[in-house]
Amino acid sequence: MEKINITHKLSLFSDHWNPKIVGELNGQHVKLVKFKGEFTWHSHEHEDELFYVIDGKFKMEFRDRTVDVLTNEFLIVPRGVEHRPVAEHEVSVMLFEPAGTLNTGNVKNEFTKENIKNI
Amino acid sequence: MEKINITHKLSLFSDHWNPKIVGELNGQHVKLVKFKGEFTWHSHEHEDELFYVIDGKFKMEFRDRTVDVLTNEFLIVPRGVEHRPVAEHEVSVMLFEPAGTLNTGNVKNEFTKENIKNI
Repeated sequence: MEKINITHKLSLFSDHWNPKIVGELNGQHVKLVKFKGEFTWHSHEHEDELFYVIDGKFKMEFRDRTVDVLTNEFLIVPRGVEHRPVAEHEVSVMLFEPAGTLNTGNVKNEFTKENIKNI
Repeated sequence: MEKINITHKLSLFSDHWNPKIVGELNGQHVKLVKFKGEFTWHSHEHEDELFYVIDGKFKMEFRDRTVDVLTNEFLIVPRGVEHRPVAEHEVSVMLFEPAGTLNTGNVKNEFTKENIKNI
């Protein structure tokens, strides 16, 4: 039951597209991740995902439109909806999603992180 | 599937200890609330609660200690643990907890908000 300092946690890693677990509650994980560049198109069959921008901005691409998500904004992507985050510059994002959510959802490729860690 | 701007949502209300729902995913609610003063001691039998400070600071009192939670920090209070938030000055907090969580948990008094709304 220790508080978590987001700025400190973000200072502990610099890799992109590699989420780290920073909290767990009610079967959900809180994760931090840094995005830069283009991710892979994917969807999650059973999990809704929340993307909260701590610092920076990114575009969430959907098949029919794009949403710009800026600092202090969040976007919830419902289960089953194909999406692809794209960040022109590095952006720090907090994720809320069920424990066990795979970052690339229904796709497995070079972006897939099977065994994410606490930080 | 619209993004939520936290700063904008916080500008829409000024009352204290009255959470507003700003998102829902996986059976969980994302809420915004402003604290000022001393809340009531309570616990939640079945729900863990996350308190993320957007702006300001507050103290989370437990029966055996107190944790100061500052901007960009979060604290997870596990189910069953008695707690009381206290804020000397107004603080804006984002909550993440199961849908249906009652703000005063096992206690009903003048702080209880039975029917919280989306904002």
